[in-house]
Amino acid sequence: MATVRLLTDSEVEAIPAAKAVFDDIRATRKSDFVNNFWRALANDPALLERTWQELKAVMVADGALDPLVREMIYIAVSTANGCTYCIHSHTASARAKGMTDAQHGELLAVIGLAGKTNHLVTAMQVPVDAAFEVKS
Amino acid sequence: MATVRLLTDSEVEAIPAAKAVFDDIRATRKSDFVNNFWRALANDPALLERTWQELKAVMVADGALDPLVREMIYIAVSTANGCTYCIHSHTASARAKGMTDAQHGELLAVIGLAGKTNHLVTAMQVPVDAAFEVKS
Amino acid sequence: MATVRLLTDSEVEAIPAAKAVFDDIRATRKSDFVNNFWRALANDPALLERTWQELKAVMVADGALDPLVREMIYIAVSTANGCTYCIHSHTASARAKGMTDAQHGELLAVIGLAGKTNHLVTAMQVPVDAAFEVKS
Amino acid sequence: MATVRLLTDSEVEAIPAAKAVFDDIRATRKSDFVNNFWRALANDPALLERTWQELKAVMVADGALDPLVREMIYIAVSTANGCTYCIHSHTASARAKGMTDAQHGELLAVIGLAGKTNHLVTAMQVPVDAAFEVKS
Amino acid sequence: MATVRLLTDSEVEAIPAAKAVFDDIRATRKSDFVNNFWRALANDPALLERTWQELKAVMVADGALDPLVREMIYIAVSTANGCTYCIHSHTASARAKGMTDAQHGELLAVIGLAGKTNHLVTAMQVPVDAAFEVKS
Amino acid sequence: MATVRLLTDSEVEAIPAAKAVFDDIRATRKSDFVNNFWRALANDPALLERTWQELKAVMVADGALDPLVREMIYIAVSTANGCTYCIHSHTASARAKGMTDAQHGELLAVIGLAGKTNHLVTAMQVPVDAAFEVKS
Repeated sequence: MATVRLLTDSEVEAIPAAKAVFDDIRATRKSDFVNNFWRALANDPALLERTWQELKAVMVADGALDPLVREMIYIAVSTANGCTYCIHSHTASARAKGMTDAQHGELLAVIGLAGKTNHLVTAMQVPVDAAFEVKS
Repeated sequence: MATVRLLTDSEVEAIPAAKAVFDDIRATRKSDFVNNFWRALANDPALLERTWQELKAVMVADGALDPLVREMIYIAVSTANGCTYCIHSHTASARAKGMTDAQHGELLAVIGLAGKTNHLVTAMQVPVDAAFEVKS
Repeated sequence: MATVRLLTDSEVEAIPAAKAVFDDIRATRKSDFVNNFWRALANDPALLERTWQELKAVMVADGALDPLVREMIYIAVSTANGCTYCIHSHTASARAKGMTDAQHGELLAVIGLAGKTNHLVTAMQVPVDAAFEVKS
Repeated sequence: MATVRLLTDSEVEAIPAAKAVFDDIRATRKSDFVNNFWRALANDPALLERTWQELKAVMVADGALDPLVREMIYIAVSTANGCTYCIHSHTASARAKGMTDAQHGELLAVIGLAGKTNHLVTAMQVPVDAAFEVKS
Repeated sequence: MATVRLLTDSEVEAIPAAKAVFDDIRATRKSDFVNNFWRALANDPALLERTWQELKAVMVADGALDPLVREMIYIAVSTANGCTYCIHSHTASARAKGMTDAQHGELLAVIGLAGKTNHLVTAMQVPVDAAFEVKS
Repeated sequence: MATVRLLTDSEVEAIPAAKAVFDDIRATRKSDFVNNFWRALANDPALLERTWQELKAVMVADGALDPLVREMIYIAVSTANGCTYCIHSHTASARAKGMTDAQHGELLAVIGLAGKTNHLVTAMQVPVDAAFEVKS
C-alpha cells in the first residue's frame, strides 16, 4: 500500500503532461508496461517529467559505462539504502540486460564485503591515508 | 583519531599472525605501502586475517566482473553508507585501475539518481510490481 | 508480524502504568483509536510513558513550528531511515492536519533532491565552505 | 579533501557549459559566492546543469511550501543520511531565510524524536495499521 | 519474494560444496532446520561457505562476549540498517539463548536512545572532545 | 565546527534550567567534565533536560543489562548510523567501564558481520521464515 495513489492508464490519459511522459517511457523501452514507480510519480507531473528525463540521461543514453554496470551500481546503492522496490526493479533490469548468475553472485559478494568493511572502518574511525588524497 | 591504535610496522613484526597478513598484502599488491585500515585491524589478528582473505577472494581474484567494476560497486555502497575512509580508498583504487574522469562522472550520476529515486520510492511506499518477481 | 506482541485493550487494562498512557493518548487525540506503535511499546510501560511524554512535548504542544511542518520533517527523517510504519503513520497525520496534494508533492520533491545531493556530496567528499561555519 | 578537484573561477571560465550555470547561480542568489558543491560538480557540466536546474525548481521557485520549510526538510533528510556538508550548507541557508533559534531547537527535537521512534518501530517490526492505508 | 531462488534441500544435495555447509549448519545447531538466508546464499557456494565460516567464528565460537550479548549487538546493527529479516532471525536467536522480556525492553530502550542522540549529534555536528581521543 | 554554539560554563550559569542539568550530570558522573554534546543541547534547555533524564533512565539506572553491554549496543547503533561523535564518546565510556581489547575486538567482529549479512539479506530480499514469527 503506497502513501499516494497509483494512477491507472485512464487517469494518466487525463493529464497531458503525465501522458507525454508515459508515451516516452513506452517508446523508449519499446514496451507497453509502465511500472508502479511512474504511476506513483504521475500524481506530480513536474516531478515525473524531471525524474524520467534524468533517468533517460543517466541510465539509457550512451556513455562511458556499460548500461549493465550502471544497473549494478544502482542495485548497490539501493541495497545500502534498503529500498526494496528499487532492488527488485533494478535486479530485473540488470537481468534483462544480460546479468548472469555468476555476475549477480559477485555483485552480492562485493556489496556484502563493502557493507562489512564500511562498518569496521566506521567503528574504528580509521583516518584517511595521505596517499589517498586528490592532488589539486 | 581512531578508536583503536594504528599499529606500526615494528609492532606488527611482533605479532606473527598479523605479520603474515601484512607480508601477503605487500606481495599481492606489489607495493610496500599498507594503508591504515589494515593497521587498525591488526589489533585483532584473526579479524585481520579473515577480512584480508575475503577481500582477496572478492576484489582481487579473477571473476565474472571486471576489477574496476567491482571498485565502482564498492564506492556506491560506501557512499550510501557514508563511509569517508572507504570512499577515499576505493576511489583511489578505481583510479589506479584506470577509471577515467568520464567514468567517474557517470558513476556519480548513477549514485545521485539512485539516492534520489530510493528516497522517492520509500516516501511513496511504492509496491513491487508482480513483473519484477523471481520465478521459482 | 512484530518481534513483540501488540497488546490488546484488555491486556493494557491490566497494567496500570500502560493504561494511564493509553487514556492520555485517547484524551489528547480525542479519539478511541490507539495505533500499533503504542500497543507494541506497552510491553515496557516505562518506555511507553517516556516516549509518549516526549511525543506530546515535541509534536503536540504549541511551539515555533506549525504542527503540519513538524509532521513533514518527521516524514523526511523516516524516509531517509527507511521506516515504513513511520512513513505511513505520519503521512496519515500530515493529511489529517491539512496537507494538500501539492504540499505532499513538494515534500517528496525536496526529499528526493536531498537524497540525490546527499549522495553526490558524500561520493565527492566536498569540504565544508568556511562561510557556513557558525560564529562563536 | 575531496575525491574530485574543486574548480576555481578561472577553470570554470574555460568550460562554457559550467560557466553558464555559475552565472545563473550568481544571478539567482544575487551573490558572487559559489560554494564548493558546485565547484565539485563542475567537473561534469551535464551533471552540474541538471542538478542546478532541479535545485532551482524545487528549492527556489514559488510553491505550496514556504522556502524556509523546504530548507528544514532538507536538513532533516541530510541528518538522517549523515551528510556533514549538506547539514552545514542548508542550516546556513535556513538561517539566512530567517530560521530563529527557537525554530532550530524544535527542528532538532523533531529530528531526534523521529530518529528514536524510527529505531523503536524497526526493532519491534510494528505492522502498519489498516487505518493508515491510502484509499484507492 | 527474493531476488534469487531459495534452494530446496534436494537442490542443495546436487551441489557438493553447498551440501557440506548445510550439513555443518545442521550439526553445529543440532537442528534439521535451515533458514532462508542460507538457502538464498546457496546459489553461490563460495559466498555461502565464507559467510558460514565467519558466522561460526564470530557468533558461535567461545570468546570474550557472551553469545546472548553478541545477538543483541547484531539486533542493534540490523535495526539501524533496517534489515527486517535480520531483526526477526536474531531476535529469535536471542530469545532461544535466554533473552528475557526485561532484557529485550532494555535493548529496545538503548537502541531508541542511540537513534535519537545519533540524530541530534549529527544535526548539531558536535565536535569530538579531546578527552575521547585514543592515546597512541 | 558545530551548527549551534557550544555553551561555556559561564553561559550555562546564566540559564537556570540548563545549570540544573549540568549540576546533575556532574553529580551523577562524579566528574567536573561535561562533554560537548550537552554544551550543544544547552541551547534548548527543555531538550537538554529531556535527553539527560532519558539517558539517566536508560544508561545509568540499574537494570537487566550490564552497563557495559548497554554501551556496546550504543556503539553498534552509532556505527551503523555513522555517528562519529557517538562512536568516540561511547567507546570511551565502554573503556571506562572496563571493556577489554578482546571484548572490543569481538564487538567489532559482530558489527562487521552484521553489516555484511544485513547487506546480503537486503540485496537478496530474503523472506522471513515462518519459524521466526512471534506467537500471539
